[in-house]
Amino acid sequence: MAADVEPVQALPDDSTRSGDHLKRPRVAVTLGDPNGIGPEIVLKSVRETHRLRMAQPVIVGSAQVLRAHAVHMENRPPDMEIVASMPDRIPPEGLFVLDAAEGEPFEPVFGKVAAEAGALAMRSVERAVELCLAGEVDAVVTAPVHKEAISMAGYIHPGHTEFIAGLAGCSQYAMMMIAEGLRVGLVTAHMPLRDVPHAVTRESVLAGIRVVHAALRADFGIRRPEIAVLGLNPHAGEGGVLGREETEVVGPAIHEAQAGGLLVSGPYPADGFFGAGIWRQYDAVLAMYHDQGLAPFKTLAFEHGVNYTAGLPIVRTSPDHGTAFDIAGQGRARSESMLSAISLAVDIVRCRNR
Amino acid sequence: MAADVEPVQALPDDSTRSGDHLKRPRVAVTLGDPNGIGPEIVLKSVRETHRLRMAQPVIVGSAQVLRAHAVHMENRPPDMEIVASMPDRIPPEGLFVLDAAEGEPFEPVFGKVAAEAGALAMRSVERAVELCLAGEVDAVVTAPVHKEAISMAGYIHPGHTEFIAGLAGCSQYAMMMIAEGLRVGLVTAHMPLRDVPHAVTRESVLAGIRVVHAALRADFGIRRPEIAVLGLNPHAGEGGVLGREETEVVGPAIHEAQAGGLLVSGPYPADGFFGAGIWRQYDAVLAMYHDQGLAPFKTLAFEHGVNYTAGLPIVRTSPDHGTAFDIAGQGRARSESMLSAISLAVDIVRCRNR
Repeated sequence: MAADVEPVQALPDDSTRSGDHLKRPRVAVTLGDPNGIGPEIVLKSVRETHRLRMAQPVIVGSAQVLRAHAVHMENRPPDMEIVASMPDRIPPEGLFVLDAAEGEPFEPVFGKVAAEAGALAMRSVERAVELCLAGEVDAVVTAPVHKEAISMAGYIHPGHTEFIAGLAGCSQYAMMMIAEGLRVGLVTAHMPLRDVPHAVTRESVLAGIRVVHAALRADFGIRRPEIAVLGLNPHAGEGGVLGREETEVVGPAIHEAQAGGLLVSGPYPADGFFGAGIWRQYDAVLAMYHDQGLAPFKTLAFEHGVNYTAGLPIVRTSPDHGTAFDIAGQGRARSESMLSAISLAVDIVRCRNR
Repeated sequence: MAADVEPVQALPDDSTRSGDHLKRPRVAVTLGDPNGIGPEIVLKSVRETHRLRMAQPVIVGSAQVLRAHAVHMENRPPDMEIVASMPDRIPPEGLFVLDAAEGEPFEPVFGKVAAEAGALAMRSVERAVELCLAGEVDAVVTAPVHKEAISMAGYIHPGHTEFIAGLAGCSQYAMMMIAEGLRVGLVTAHMPLRDVPHAVTRESVLAGIRVVHAALRADFGIRRPEIAVLGLNPHAGEGGVLGREETEVVGPAIHEAQAGGLLVSGPYPADGFFGAGIWRQYDAVLAMYHDQGLAPFKTLAFEHGVNYTAGLPIVRTSPDHGTAFDIAGQGRARSESMLSAISLAVDIVRCRNR
C-alpha cells in the first residue's frame, strides 16, 4: 500500500510530515451535537484510528465537551492536547483537539435539544471545512448534528451536506451512501416528497449521473464505472401506465449520458433492482429520492454505511446515523459507522492523490 | 392441525368433500399470461401442492396452453382432467383444469406481448373470482399477467389487485406483501409518484390502517395486532422541516385509530425503520407508497414474498414476481413464490373459518 501513496498537499518534505505520518492523512473529525452521542463515538473511533495507524485525527469542537463525555464514561479526564489553530506538527498519538468553541464554556446536557448546542456543532463544521479548504487537513468527517437544534440556532440548511456544499461554493454535488460493494447516490435528498417530481428533471438526473461518475473515477479509482439509474415511479412507470417521467425525463438523461460515453443503464424499477440483487452488477446506483435509495440501502447495510458527499472539492464523510439523544452519555453508542467514515475518507484522500 | 379445521363452505357432509379432502381447501390457480412463465410455475407448484397434501388445486385457464408448456418442458403431454364448469367432486390428485378458454384455441408464443394473451389471462382471473364468489372454490391464486398485454386487450386496470377488487365490488382494500415475519401494507400502490402526496389523505391512511388491522385479525389470527405506520416524507418530515403531511395527515390518522382502540404507532422514517429492524416489533407496517414499502420488502424477502389483497370478501394471493418473458418456456422459472402464495391462501382460508 504505502509505496504508491503520495503526500496529500504539496507540503515541503520536512519533519512535519515525514516517516510514517507521511502516509497517514490528516482528518478533521467534528464532535457533532454536544448533547448527543457524537463526542462519545469520536472518542472511541479516534483511539481505534490510532491503533490501526489509519489517520492523523484532528478533533474539531469544544475540548470541554469532549472532557465532560470522557469523565462521564470513564470517570477520569482524558489526555488531550488542545490548540486554537493548526500547528505544523501534530502529535502522532492521543487526542488532539482544535478548540472550535474558542474558550466559550459549554456543559453538555445529554439528550437536550438546544440552540447553543446546534450553534456549537455547526461552528465546528465550519471550522473543519475551512481547515480542509486551506489544505491544513486532508478530509472532514462529521459526527451527527440535530436538525431541530441547528434550526433553532438559525441554520436553514436541512443538514450537513447542503451546509458544507455551500461553504465549499459547490452547486453540483450528490449525497451518496457507501457500504461494502454498494454505493447509492441521490438526485434529490432532503426535501418533501411532493417536491420530488418537480426536482427530478433531465438536468438534475444528468448532473447526478455525472457527479457520481466523476466520484467513482476520482474517489474510488474505478476507471470505467457502470452506473444504474432507478425510475421515479413504481415499476419505473410500466411503459407510461404508471407515470411518464421515465420516458420524458430519466430515460433521455440516461441517453444523453450514454451519448457522452458513460456506461449508464436504466431506468430500473427500485423494488426488483434491490430485491433481485441487480445492484451487485453496478459500481453505483442513482436513486431519484431519499427513501427510494436509503430504505433498501440501510436494509442491506445498517451500521456499516457511510454518508459521503460526491462532487465537493474537499473530501467529506459521516456515519449514517443520527444524534441518538435517547442513549447519549451512556457509553453504549457504537462507533463502527464513525470508524468506517474515517476509513473511507482516508481511502478517498489516497485515491485522489494517486 | 386437522382437528380445528372446519369445511370452508356449509357443504353437505357427503362424499364430495369427505375424509382427507375435507381439510384441503379448494384453490383456483390461474395460469397468468400464456406467453410468460405462469403456466410453468403453476405446473410445478400444483404437483408440489399435491405432494404436500396442501390444497385441492383447480387450474383455471386454457388446457391447450398448459399442454403446450408441459410438452415443451417435458416432451410429453401431461395427464389432465379438463372440465368446462365445476363438478361437485374433484379428483384428489393430478392436473384438474377448468378451461376458461371455452374451447378457443391458443398456441403460446414464449415472450410475446399480445392482446389475445392478455385477454385470455384476464378472462381466467374473472372466471376464478366468480367461482370463489359463488363458493365453488375457497381461494384464488393468480399467476402473473403482463400489464402491457392486458392494456392492449382493453383492460384499464393497473393490475390484478384493482381488477379483482372491482369484480368483488370492494372499494376498501389494500395491497399487502407477506413474508415470514414481515407484512407490508400500502396506502397507495400502482400510481405515478406525483399523484401519491394527493392520494395520501387522513381518510386513506385511516382506511389503510383499518383494512390491515382487520386482515391481521381475521386472516392471520392475531388478536391484538400492532401496526407501524411510515411517514410520507424523508425522516418522516423531521418535525415539519421536510414536509407537513406527518403532522397534518398521517399523525392525525394514527391518533384517530388509537382513539378507536387500535395499537398503531408512527409515523416512522422508512429508512431507519427497515434498517434498524424495527419492523420485527410489529405485526405489520403500513407504507405510504409502492417503492417505499416494496423496495425494502423485496430486499429482505426476494423470491419468498407473497402478494395478498387485504379487505376482499374472497381470499386472493399471488407470487411477487412478473411474467419473466425473458425466460418463458425454458423450464428455468422458480416456483417457490407461487407455492408460497398457494400455501398462504390455504392458511388464510383456514384462519377465516376458525
